[in-house]
Amino acid sequence: MEVMQILHMNKGVGETSYAQNSKLQSKIISITKPIIHDAVQEILHSNNIESMGIADLGCSSGPNTLLLISEIIDAIIRTKSCSLSLHLSATTELRVFLNDLFSNDFNNIFMSLPAFYNKLKQEKGPELGSLFISATPGSFYGRLFPARSLHFVHSSSSLHWLSQVPPGLDSKAAGEALNKGKIYISKTSPQCVLDSYALQFHNDFSLFLKSRAEEMFGGGRMVLSLMGRPSYDPTTPASCYQWELLAHALMTLVSEGLIAEEKVDSFNAPYYAPCEEELSLALKKEGSFLMDSLEAFEIDWDGGGGDQELHHTFDMVGSGQKVAKTVRAVVESMLESHFGKDIMDHLFQCYAKLVSNHLSKSRTRYINLVLVIIKKD
Amino acid sequence: MEVMQILHMNKGVGETSYAQNSKLQSKIISITKPIIHDAVQEILHSNNIESMGIADLGCSSGPNTLLLISEIIDAIIRTKSCSLSLHLSATTELRVFLNDLFSNDFNNIFMSLPAFYNKLKQEKGPELGSLFISATPGSFYGRLFPARSLHFVHSSSSLHWLSQVPPGLDSKAAGEALNKGKIYISKTSPQCVLDSYALQFHNDFSLFLKSRAEEMFGGGRMVLSLMGRPSYDPTTPASCYQWELLAHALMTLVSEGLIAEEKVDSFNAPYYAPCEEELSLALKKEGSFLMDSLEAFEIDWDGGGGDQELHHTFDMVGSGQKVAKTVRAVVESMLESHFGKDIMDHLFQCYAKLVSNHLSKSRTRYINLVLVIIKKD
Repeated sequence: MEVMQILHMNKGVGETSYAQNSKLQSKIISITKPIIHDAVQEILHSNNIESMGIADLGCSSGPNTLLLISEIIDAIIRTKSCSLSLHLSATTELRVFLNDLFSNDFNNIFMSLPAFYNKLKQEKGPELGSLFISATPGSFYGRLFPARSLHFVHSSSSLHWLSQVPPGLDSKAAGEALNKGKIYISKTSPQCVLDSYALQFHNDFSLFLKSRAEEMFGGGRMVLSLMGRPSYDPTTPASCYQWELLAHALMTLVSEGLIAEEKVDSFNAPYYAPCEEELSLALKKEGSFLMDSLEAFEIDWDGGGGDQELHHTFDMVGSGQKVAKTVRAVVESMLESHFGKDIMDHLFQCYAKLVSNHLSKSRTRYINLVLVIIKKD
Repeated sequence: MEVMQILHMNKGVGETSYAQNSKLQSKIISITKPIIHDAVQEILHSNNIESMGIADLGCSSGPNTLLLISEIIDAIIRTKSCSLSLHLSATTELRVFLNDLFSNDFNNIFMSLPAFYNKLKQEKGPELGSLFISATPGSFYGRLFPARSLHFVHSSSSLHWLSQVPPGLDSKAAGEALNKGKIYISKTSPQCVLDSYALQFHNDFSLFLKSRAEEMFGGGRMVLSLMGRPSYDPTTPASCYQWELLAHALMTLVSEGLIAEEKVDSFNAPYYAPCEEELSLALKKEGSFLMDSLEAFEIDWDGGGGDQELHHTFDMVGSGQKVAKTVRAVVESMLESHFGKDIMDHLFQCYAKLVSNHLSKSRTRYINLVLVIIKKD
């Protein structure tokens, strides 16, 4: 599977679109809001910036894309208004680069830009200064931007996507399927599957850091949020049970004669949810960045989360459908290219039921890791 | 009509798409190829450039978009290889910005970028250096890019589009339709229509120059090609007869009861084909640029052109259809928003016949103006 050319959030604004089914990712952005604010503040306090370069990597297409840009601009304006001694004038230019893979629905973002610019001008007035929004399509596992052009880099819900399915998992190469009946790391996966995934993540994340190191100014900061796991064990349900249930749904379709079992055996998700130690280790080895902070948050599969919501009553069926829609908006492009378009509706109906059933017994939650790192001088 | 939000070349790659019907515009790019080459050479010879900023304004979406980028990169590499004394190393970064209105089909361009990057790498090898392609949507009648960020600006077949229908033509404001039965300047148009169009072009082109002046480095160059006219008379067939026939086709649909006459009366194209004197005057008044050259080329309505082709035999019917397809791919978004989708097929069939008939009697050709201007220090 050519991940870079296939993977994209569901396009448009219809019922199965990412734009309509990205509450989970929106929740994650709202959790990281104060972290983004602090990072922007630190950048502005320690650098003399005439033209500030900002990139959102894996920006997707939907309300979250421009919400995030709003948050960053808010943080900049609030910092400017609170600090008298700031190396930043009202005339500072903001250069914002939106990035995602080549097949992302950028048209949808661009169509909403005129209204976005108007709203910003009305709300912020002259404090907004000059704002230039561009899109740079391509994989962030490699160079995307000119040397020393960025001060702040953000990426949310994207870095858990690998550049490719770990090559060691290719069933043709190995002679037989290594991860039979599964599509990601599972309790029954052999050690070589776990190792292949961990190695691919390490290589990808290191290349990500190396690429950004060339593009960023010293003192610049990155706020990166991605799916992770709470322990060293990569088979922990918090990091892989959503895939376990999706494999289960696929195997149900196998039993119904709708897809061939080999098709499931030969599919593996280009995804990895790392633990904190893996991130720290890769960062240290690459060497261009310092860790500023690393936090973990629990999030409900349907986009809820936070302790205050721990005891709310579940609508199991509704929740299962919501989770299925959220997952579908993200993974459908990959599944469709491997299994065909026709089975998608049935697959995600089946998945919704399995999720409802699971959530009625156990409230598995995602772990979202948020790290802030600083480019060394 | 909100030109900035409505006007776009027909999307996708289908039969009526701009991608399939832009031979005329491709012909224009090929005519300007040596002019682009010379301009790039002059820039590289007179400036010390580490990171070269290049913008294509009104890039559209189709084969022409990337063809143009190829031409520019070719010119840069050829200049580098011919000159030993050049202020340019193989490591010079190329920052390419593609611009068009918000509703342009950027998705289509982005999907073809991976193959484009691969082809360039194969053909050019390490001489290519670092190439970063971004898209910046928005109107070029206003700021698009950071201050002093561009060395070379290109725009082809775009600057004849106005930012709005000249406000003086609004029939509601005037109480009655000023340009009855016509959709652009015509022999029968009153003087106030001619004046309104000329004023709108002057204001738009001046704002274009002012905006670019802030974005370009001193010594930077623009190569601008646009539809024009051979004489001071704005009613000359070379600049307006394609609109005359389109109005004729619309009035045929009026006589068939398919559209209301008032609908035609209230539509005016946001278009203007200037003469050389108008360009020179606006340039002189704005004051930031020096004229390097200004040339006029004749082009056949169907994309042919050049003296060697003057005596070829016409396929009148085929030619009429080709012209109708070319015009449709460009103006359909505007006509559709005013007259509705349903009549488009019939309208352009009718238009194709009128064009065939006209070309059998008179070989009206477009005039394409190409100017090269230099940003003052």
